Amino acid sequence: MSYFRTAVDLTTGYIPGEQPKPGTPILKLNTNENPYPPSPKAIEVLRNLDSEWLRRYPDPYAKDFCLAVSEALEIPTDWIIVSNGSDELLNVIIRACAEGSDRPVVYPMPTYVLYRTLAALQPADAVEISYPQDFKLPIDELVAAKGAVTFIASPNSPSGHIVPLDDLRELAQRLSGILVIDEAYVDFADYSALPLVREFDNVIILRTLSKGYSLAGLRMGFGIANPQLLTGLFKVKDSYNIDAIATLVGAAAISDRAYKNECAEKIKKSREILTANLKNLDFTALKSHGNFLLATPPEGNAEHLYLQLKARGILVRYFKQFGLENKLRITVGTEEQNQTLLAALLAIEKQ
Amino acid sequence: MSYFRTAVDLTTGYIPGEQPKPGTPILKLNTNENPYPPSPKAIEVLRNLDSEWLRRYPDPYAKDFCLAVSEALEIPTDWIIVSNGSDELLNVIIRACAEGSDRPVVYPMPTYVLYRTLAALQPADAVEISYPQDFKLPIDELVAAKGAVTFIASPNSPSGHIVPLDDLRELAQRLSGILVIDEAYVDFADYSALPLVREFDNVIILRTLSKGYSLAGLRMGFGIANPQLLTGLFKVKDSYNIDAIATLVGAAAISDRAYKNECAEKIKKSREILTANLKNLDFTALKSHGNFLLATPPEGNAEHLYLQLKARGILVRYFKQFGLENKLRITVGTEEQNQTLLAALLAIEKQ
Repeated sequence: MSYFRTAVDLTTGYIPGEQPKPGTPILKLNTNENPYPPSPKAIEVLRNLDSEWLRRYPDPYAKDFCLAVSEALEIPTDWIIVSNGSDELLNVIIRACAEGSDRPVVYPMPTYVLYRTLAALQPADAVEISYPQDFKLPIDELVAAKGAVTFIASPNSPSGHIVPLDDLRELAQRLSGILVIDEAYVDFADYSALPLVREFDNVIILRTLSKGYSLAGLRMGFGIANPQLLTGLFKVKDSYNIDAIATLVGAAAISDRAYKNECAEKIKKSREILTANLKNLDFTALKSHGNFLLATPPEGNAEHLYLQLKARGILVRYFKQFGLENKLRITVGTEEQNQTLLAALLAIEKQ
Repeated sequence: MSYFRTAVDLTTGYIPGEQPKPGTPILKLNTNENPYPPSPKAIEVLRNLDSEWLRRYPDPYAKDFCLAVSEALEIPTDWIIVSNGSDELLNVIIRACAEGSDRPVVYPMPTYVLYRTLAALQPADAVEISYPQDFKLPIDELVAAKGAVTFIASPNSPSGHIVPLDDLRELAQRLSGILVIDEAYVDFADYSALPLVREFDNVIILRTLSKGYSLAGLRMGFGIANPQLLTGLFKVKDSYNIDAIATLVGAAAISDRAYKNECAEKIKKSREILTANLKNLDFTALKSHGNFLLATPPEGNAEHLYLQLKARGILVRYFKQFGLENKLRITVGTEEQNQTLLAALLAIEKQ
């Protein structure tokens, strides 16, 4: 007998994007980090943290962080669950709700591939519904799949599209299971689905500080839903999943929304410029509502280009995945970083 | 249909010990925190951390921490898996290995009650074998229960006893599943079972920085086992489970073993003094190898005493659990804290 469950033996696990160390002379446009540093107010908290916070166990509910979220988003503190990045919350939701073929996980493709990995580990059946070319939400197919959990990333990665609120509303209404709206990239979008958590008892919104707040290294995510829905998730999450430092640094960051918005505005501007410049190089790129672009090189030779860029010290994301073979996902950097990327693409083209 | 799996609806989740905020005027002897502050070298890392570490995703394997552990314990880096406290690793092990009645979880009682909670959530059958009065490891019964995972906490909480290496060796040899030796309290003990990971391919040793290293608020734990055994666990753990701050602060802490040992020696000395003083108050207390004592008050009215102490601003741990109803688990504090506790017990006795 294997030491492991069959579901574990059968999976390979999730393979994260390459993460060279800070200090490595590389331009990192592969994992959608924010190119601007975190809020100076968050760093100040770090510098002045009383070591007593480290000696003791943290608050199991990260209450100080919940208070800050509550003020920033105008939702009650008991509508918030805090997690070690939103990845942990995805995991907790699947473990709380999904199982086998009776309680499947459903999501449209292409999207965040971790949904598939987590379903396979549970194990729960994963029903994958293809997005049409225009990325209109396939509501009928999603409803018909009868998910115990249905994941919709909006803005979605890697496509960058955002799902209209009315589509999400219709989906929430017709589903009998939970609808998870993964808003990892919402800080770069024009609207949020947050109002839906008050309209539907089966909707949970997921947020992260990794992208908009430049805190991918801190591992802070959270979910917003009615307290009844959160009850089941609290049972599954580890008691002390959030460390004391992340609680306080995260609270300071989310309280400094002006700084976050300022950085997001710069990125949104750069995103439009980068889109136009890539088009000048005969790439096609979908309109994006995230801090990245899904771009198709003119020759379609995305994997080759990915390797060529890597050889020049520029990392972008290439997914060996159906429908994405001819595409690259490129994180929007600073203006200077984007220019470096464009110069490299031009040089490669001229080779 | 419930939004949640039956296993989740049926459980209540783990209830952690009370965690008042730093600054609260309370003497906290309920969750086995170290009374001494973390290593000054660890705090220095925190104060000087480059914010670039926060902006980027952390290393998925917390390599810098693994390197520090490797040097401190003289084991190769690929024999180490890092987790968000050892609690997360318990969770990962159960999810990787246990399931239903075919792959049960087995452990002797009384022990850390989280094993039971995690098994119930999986769900996997939990087979609980009672320790005899003298806490001799019930090897035959444990083997007969055929666990996919067998947990032995050594030193054990709340009893404080340590399991002889030869007993663990015999158990490892006779089990067909994995043997998890949970050494959360090893820093206060005279020996470790670490050599067993080289002798047996089914043994994993769990460690934490929460107790010996005074870093309960940081959430750093790790496991040591042969790389083959770790493969299955790496598939299950979240990719970015450890934040960048914890990786670096934890590395500095574990590299400063001299400081940790100095604090542990003080605690071991205080433990013996506290044991003697409690006996003078007609308590009985088992010999402890952890940073806590399991003590039976003379009248056996443990719950009443717990409440009386709480009213005086002193928290100790009372478990409403079979066999523990007449006992208190008391964390060993500084000499001064222990004197405050003893004075309170004396005052309550005289009421």
